[in-house]
Amino acid sequence: MTQMTNMRLAVEQELQEIFREFFPTESSDLRSMLFYHMGWEGAGSGPEAQGKRIRPLLVLLCGASAGGDWHRALPAAAAVEIVHNFSLIHDDIEDSSVLRRGRATVWNQWGSAQAINAGDAMFSLAPLALARLEPSLGSSVAMEAIRILFHTAVQLTRGQYLDMAFETENQVSISSYWEMVGGKTASLLAASAELGALCAGADELLRKGYRTFGWNLGLAFQALDDLLGIWGDEVELGKSTSSDLTTGKKTLPVLYGLELQGEFSQRWLAGPISPNEAFQAAQMLEKDGAREYTQSMADRLTQEALASLDRVIVDRATGMELQSLAMQLLKRNR
Amino acid sequence: MTQMTNMRLAVEQELQEIFREFFPTESSDLRSMLFYHMGWEGAGSGPEAQGKRIRPLLVLLCGASAGGDWHRALPAAAAVEIVHNFSLIHDDIEDSSVLRRGRATVWNQWGSAQAINAGDAMFSLAPLALARLEPSLGSSVAMEAIRILFHTAVQLTRGQYLDMAFETENQVSISSYWEMVGGKTASLLAASAELGALCAGADELLRKGYRTFGWNLGLAFQALDDLLGIWGDEVELGKSTSSDLTTGKKTLPVLYGLELQGEFSQRWLAGPISPNEAFQAAQMLEKDGAREYTQSMADRLTQEALASLDRVIVDRATGMELQSLAMQLLKRNR
Repeated sequence: MTQMTNMRLAVEQELQEIFREFFPTESSDLRSMLFYHMGWEGAGSGPEAQGKRIRPLLVLLCGASAGGDWHRALPAAAAVEIVHNFSLIHDDIEDSSVLRRGRATVWNQWGSAQAINAGDAMFSLAPLALARLEPSLGSSVAMEAIRILFHTAVQLTRGQYLDMAFETENQVSISSYWEMVGGKTASLLAASAELGALCAGADELLRKGYRTFGWNLGLAFQALDDLLGIWGDEVELGKSTSSDLTTGKKTLPVLYGLELQGEFSQRWLAGPISPNEAFQAAQMLEKDGAREYTQSMADRLTQEALASLDRVIVDRATGMELQSLAMQLLKRNR
Repeated sequence: MTQMTNMRLAVEQELQEIFREFFPTESSDLRSMLFYHMGWEGAGSGPEAQGKRIRPLLVLLCGASAGGDWHRALPAAAAVEIVHNFSLIHDDIEDSSVLRRGRATVWNQWGSAQAINAGDAMFSLAPLALARLEPSLGSSVAMEAIRILFHTAVQLTRGQYLDMAFETENQVSISSYWEMVGGKTASLLAASAELGALCAGADELLRKGYRTFGWNLGLAFQALDDLLGIWGDEVELGKSTSSDLTTGKKTLPVLYGLELQGEFSQRWLAGPISPNEAFQAAQMLEKDGAREYTQSMADRLTQEALASLDRVIVDRATGMELQSLAMQLLKRNR
């Protein structure tokens, strides 16, 4: 088995241990909601429903590449995955999303009220997960991890706030777009990388380097996600392309097109884009240069991420695996 | 000024420092939601909208009565108030409550989606508040505080889960009622008392004593709250009595009446109780002995709380203030 496969298994075990410790009664419906969301129970459970656990793997690979024993970073890996999943449960309610990883969302299954509470239950586990760092890494490192992760949780809510506010705003600037993406996507990847380095005993400077790597990786990821949302391959996406144009989502290419005030901008301002107009609108946007702009932003951010990574890698072999995880994230299916 | 007045002011200052540190931008709408809910901003802001801050005062008074310097416990006092208020924001959404302390609830003002996220933002501040214990009390005490508070947060969600589940259940036992109340009300008061003792450097045994005091206080509080919900003084309540009977809430007196299978039980099972039937239904319930039973449970739990407190008080003068806070809680207006 490769190191990453070992890590993947260890993350799942760590997560399950934490959930079972605080939700010991098997017959509890609250526990069922959490286990269902984590992909461990209920219809459609299994690896597919669990997702790729990118963030915890990032914690562990960063820990190992910074020269530490990744096993010691497992509680931090679990904690970031818990924060990620708590935010998914709540985001799905906030966005009225009925499906997540091909399964009914928690609110869709149990109602919004119970789903809000289930998300809160999950969030409560995150500091408890980090408390498990204490025996092997000491109280002071555990407290630093608390500060990193919950400052990030504040940033996540700021990003989500902006994302929802954008829906009703006419004028969204590209700079506030990056602020939103920084909070919603980049902050947790930055925290994952930094927590890995922290658990490896890295000094402030090295930690900052890992943080920058995770941050740029997150921004690059979102730019590519926006691109795929309009020009992604239908088959790979498993849904119609151009859906981000029909839902009116203010993604990076759209904001670029709006700032340019070209053909696309005129069409956008005329009213909602129907599914059968989406292909044409996507072409307008491409002609306006939005696709190229978005791709070049994503490329530049990817380069910056990899350059930061290159400066901080201590263990070269793990560094290669980390690069491959990063590329997997950037080339993934949506 | 009395010690409690000083504490009240110091709590407010500590809370505001934390919120301002992590939400520095004055023009942010997310910050406005939090400051509004805390009673610091917006229509109707002021002491009335801030509530009594019972839980943080409990932390500080327990800290002082256990022989500690209460100033050192301020971050823990702020953290419990943050957890309490985060849960109020979410409970109001879950219960569709439109008013809180006489003002529009956050969801009522900004919509459910933004209110869920604002609650999450507030929750994120709780571990960051506890991190402020580290400089004066050390990392190990701060980590112990993290464990206490977030285990309690898990219990809160379990209590809220049961409370919502009861709405649709026909048969609710009195024992599951106490489990629900333990999670929803007693656990945070128990944690408040224990955190105070922890910050005072109390040993395990003393901490456990404070915890038991807070726990019984919470159970007594809820039993009395249930009693007031049916037989409370209209004028003091500021709303019609018997409202808990018309909403069909499964409170302790109601569950007692249902288990007894007397006159009240028959009426309850026949269908919803309208406001003009409420007085008569309350009389039936009283004749069945539910009022006396609830009052005697509340009295017994109050005695147990005060007896536990008596065993753990180190500083007698503060102990008196603590007793008076407890009695204020138990005799309060709803």
